[in-house]
Amino acid sequence: MDKKKEISMAVIKRLPKYYRHLAELLRNDVDRISSKELSEKIGFTASQIRQDFNCFGGFGQQGYGYNVKELYNEISKILGLDKRYSTVIIGAGNIGQAIANYTRFEKFGFDLKGIFDVNPKLHGMRIKDVEISDIDTLDSFLKENHVDIGILCVPQMQAQKVADTLVDNGVRGIWNFAPLDIDVPETVSVENVHLSESLLTLVYLMNDLEK
Amino acid sequence: MDKKKEISMAVIKRLPKYYRHLAELLRNDVDRISSKELSEKIGFTASQIRQDFNCFGGFGQQGYGYNVKELYNEISKILGLDKRYSTVIIGAGNIGQAIANYTRFEKFGFDLKGIFDVNPKLHGMRIKDVEISDIDTLDSFLKENHVDIGILCVPQMQAQKVADTLVDNGVRGIWNFAPLDIDVPETVSVENVHLSESLLTLVYLMNDLEK
Repeated sequence: MDKKKEISMAVIKRLPKYYRHLAELLRNDVDRISSKELSEKIGFTASQIRQDFNCFGGFGQQGYGYNVKELYNEISKILGLDKRYSTVIIGAGNIGQAIANYTRFEKFGFDLKGIFDVNPKLHGMRIKDVEISDIDTLDSFLKENHVDIGILCVPQMQAQKVADTLVDNGVRGIWNFAPLDIDVPETVSVENVHLSESLLTLVYLMNDLEK
Repeated sequence: MDKKKEISMAVIKRLPKYYRHLAELLRNDVDRISSKELSEKIGFTASQIRQDFNCFGGFGQQGYGYNVKELYNEISKILGLDKRYSTVIIGAGNIGQAIANYTRFEKFGFDLKGIFDVNPKLHGMRIKDVEISDIDTLDSFLKENHVDIGILCVPQMQAQKVADTLVDNGVRGIWNFAPLDIDVPETVSVENVHLSESLLTLVYLMNDLEK
């Protein structure tokens, strides 16, 4: 447990990539893979991969490589994908609707319980099986339903207020698409997807290559 | 110029954040700000901020803080936002449509020139002023039109093939939403938005807090 606390953000950010590649190997019926082969596939060095896996106690035997199924299950468990998570989306604009329609998340174990928006024209509409409700009902919905993750797709100006409502009602994780660094207590996890920042980074890199 | 080559990815990733906060200060008519005040706003330490700005030659005078307008303009220029960029979106599913509808990007200087999809039902539909075309016409479109950035919103299995078409036609930047690490020559920049990986990171962080 103490060991886990020391795991760096860099390692954590690589875990979902391992998970994705291992899922692909499983789909292709690959039973066993060496760190060298995995390295060629993922693009991290073999020693990086061994070091990362050692953070979690190490899998695989010297000279035999890794059992793909076991490694996949271990990483699932480390990521917490052996459980299911209930989610709500706040903000049913373009991004909110795109996320609601993204079937991949259901397969990972994420159950969308509600969608909320300020726009009355959207109320009552359904995305897949979930109705879009008035954002004013978010607080009471959260009091009556257990929700693990709030997916924040509202404009910048509303983001902090909605985040506060989520936090006050015990939501433990916020996936934040609003272009704002929200303030939350240390007991709540936030992962930002700041699309504009990502696009601006791309432009910087393109221009830098030309210099 | 040589100096710029040494700028670390960590600094580069912070630039869009500076840009966003400075734009907000400008909107609020703030003329001048100290690294300490900027630090409280952005959440990086003041010494981090001074160090970052020094990478680009340094702005601001000791004891006087930074001129917000000047700093904003400088960072715009460093990011390459003093130019405009023509873009195409490939894949008009949920994410592709969301990006096409995102008006913020136009303001930054990104002009959407085309949207391409494999699905005949979408062909001829318009998102804002841009028609969705058959993906089979992408290659000839790119030969006839200058495109700087390709926004890749196709499924994993198609992503590499589309990326190759973009690269072969001189596209210099790929903003990749497909859950795949695409292979491109060193002369092409790629910025990934891997939504599933971001969500899995959030879940890891949530579970880690509970330990």
